[in-house]
Amino acid sequence: MTISQRRDRLRQRLAAAELDALLVSNLVNVRYLSGFTGSNAALLILAEDETPVLATDGRYRTQAAQQAPDAEVVIERACGPHLVGRAAESGTVRTVGFESHVVTVDGFTALTRAAGERCELVSAAGMVESLREVKDAGEIALLRLACEAADAALKDLVEQGGLRPGRTEKDVRRDLEALMLDHGADGASFETIVATGPNSAIPHHRPTDAVLAAGDFVKIDFGALVCGYHSDMTRTFVLSPIAQWQHDIYDLVLAAQRAGREALAPGVALSAVDAASRSVISDAGYAENFGHGLGHGVGLQIHEAPGINASAAGTLLAGSAVTVEPGVYLPDRGGVRIEDTLVVGSDSHKTPALLTRFPKELAIL
Amino acid sequence: MTISQRRDRLRQRLAAAELDALLVSNLVNVRYLSGFTGSNAALLILAEDETPVLATDGRYRTQAAQQAPDAEVVIERACGPHLVGRAAESGTVRTVGFESHVVTVDGFTALTRAAGERCELVSAAGMVESLREVKDAGEIALLRLACEAADAALKDLVEQGGLRPGRTEKDVRRDLEALMLDHGADGASFETIVATGPNSAIPHHRPTDAVLAAGDFVKIDFGALVCGYHSDMTRTFVLSPIAQWQHDIYDLVLAAQRAGREALAPGVALSAVDAASRSVISDAGYAENFGHGLGHGVGLQIHEAPGINASAAGTLLAGSAVTVEPGVYLPDRGGVRIEDTLVVGSDSHKTPALLTRFPKELAIL
Repeated sequence: MTISQRRDRLRQRLAAAELDALLVSNLVNVRYLSGFTGSNAALLILAEDETPVLATDGRYRTQAAQQAPDAEVVIERACGPHLVGRAAESGTVRTVGFESHVVTVDGFTALTRAAGERCELVSAAGMVESLREVKDAGEIALLRLACEAADAALKDLVEQGGLRPGRTEKDVRRDLEALMLDHGADGASFETIVATGPNSAIPHHRPTDAVLAAGDFVKIDFGALVCGYHSDMTRTFVLSPIAQWQHDIYDLVLAAQRAGREALAPGVALSAVDAASRSVISDAGYAENFGHGLGHGVGLQIHEAPGINASAAGTLLAGSAVTVEPGVYLPDRGGVRIEDTLVVGSDSHKTPALLTRFPKELAIL
Repeated sequence: MTISQRRDRLRQRLAAAELDALLVSNLVNVRYLSGFTGSNAALLILAEDETPVLATDGRYRTQAAQQAPDAEVVIERACGPHLVGRAAESGTVRTVGFESHVVTVDGFTALTRAAGERCELVSAAGMVESLREVKDAGEIALLRLACEAADAALKDLVEQGGLRPGRTEKDVRRDLEALMLDHGADGASFETIVATGPNSAIPHHRPTDAVLAAGDFVKIDFGALVCGYHSDMTRTFVLSPIAQWQHDIYDLVLAAQRAGREALAPGVALSAVDAASRSVISDAGYAENFGHGLGHGVGLQIHEAPGINASAAGTLLAGSAVTVEPGVYLPDRGGVRIEDTLVVGSDSHKTPALLTRFPKELAIL
């Protein structure tokens, strides 16, 4: 799907919602609908006009013309108010949707002033995010590249002996991030988590000077960024010797992760996917040791729609990219999380595409 | 100054503004006033009570107790509405300030519902940011560490021959970021800019596979992050042989940067600081080749108050940390930017403290 086809889909939704236009303020949505990646921008999409209007400031004059060749570019620092004012002056736009989940109260005051009496601002929260939930072929290709960079970096790290007693969590993070760059990543997709020993029991741990030691779990949650697309993967290793409790919870989480992956199919309730994996852990008596949701959408943001958790409404859509990441955390002892990024298949008989392909079998290093 | 003294200063301002409480939603402000660094939180500061209330979700139960030991911690995912509801129920809070520059329209709807008829929500945009403009001794110490890590990394990079023909912009970025980690940084403070040859004429350029070549300007704008504090420095090198036009614009930017640094004193108009540096460049006939502001505040965010540019209102404050970063960019040829991070002195006779100490004399490599 081309970027202009994405806008066509959005314009159909605008018409269905009886909106004459949408002011796109979320910069990630601006990128999705125009290709422009600058740090100050807004985009006006008109229901009745194929040409979008992109506002940005003078720093980005050249970049905007290059990245968004089919948009009309206007240079104006107060992007949102300028575009709303322009819509209001057109005389043909009566209702403008705005992203009420992104626009601040002060920003809305400025938009209201620009709209004046001539047009009405209507909340259109999440309209673009909901389009973004289903990935097109170009997006899946970029997600795949991001996942491949992460896979290759972790493979190199392990083969180079990067996970061994005596190294620190920070050492491991440094090497892994450099290796991702070597494998074509533009950067890390979020702050790399490296958690050894008891630290592995902390779901979101930041790397410290803690030293990897024999008998530790080493939990690594990381991803690569490629052309704006984020990969997300967690693997947990054991530094020999392994104890029985470690065997037990590793096997448990692996089984729960498999159950979660196998539940991924279009039309399945998001809460049912969570339950499919969580029940494996609960049945083993570890319900209280799995205190977070099962997964989340991933794409231009590391966390996006849909959320996969017990209280999520809605169902999985064909072509959405999601993580499946159950964990069991035993405070002060250690924890295991296993996470993949996958793309939901086109029908319920088709297994999801696994993008993160680094092995998940227990590895004792 | 301790964190509780920061809150005392804020509470004085609340009293002056006739607010009974402030709901802090900006996570950077939450960190500044409580020490808590989680990704979902809000903080309620009461004018008449020394104990702040920190709301966060279950993932952060342990971390919140550790990082914010003198706050009352409540575990509640909908942080802001919960705290406003609690204030409303107290019976003693009539007016609650909220951060209208941060809270979204949808977020405000939820706050309004929580407040009900019992208390009034009043915009208090920028109240905490204005406190943060003046750094305390602990903050300056962390900024200094961040700047030292960047200085040391760049020194190593140059000494290792990291800037030489044949290497790519991405190679340089990779090495520099890894070296910052080696020197104690928690990460890069923003996306490292490495721009060689004609790319150096692009003010904000992302590293590509472009190869460094003899005769290139190599512009490097980067920083280190230490305990939440950001350093920011730009140096521009020349790969031998140097041409006369390169000599000329380097000397010009260096003189403009010195003029900007020398203008830094408390009470000076921000626009006058910009003018002091910009006039050097304008007088030489390059006004159109310096298309951005002179500098910005730096601290818990890479860009914060004050902005130093031609249209900035207000004056410099003693103890604020700012960048001075003039540049001259010749499209399709090359550009020079020289940038330091400095702390404004306590009186007009005191020179600002230079935190980024890597030499600025022209270096031909």
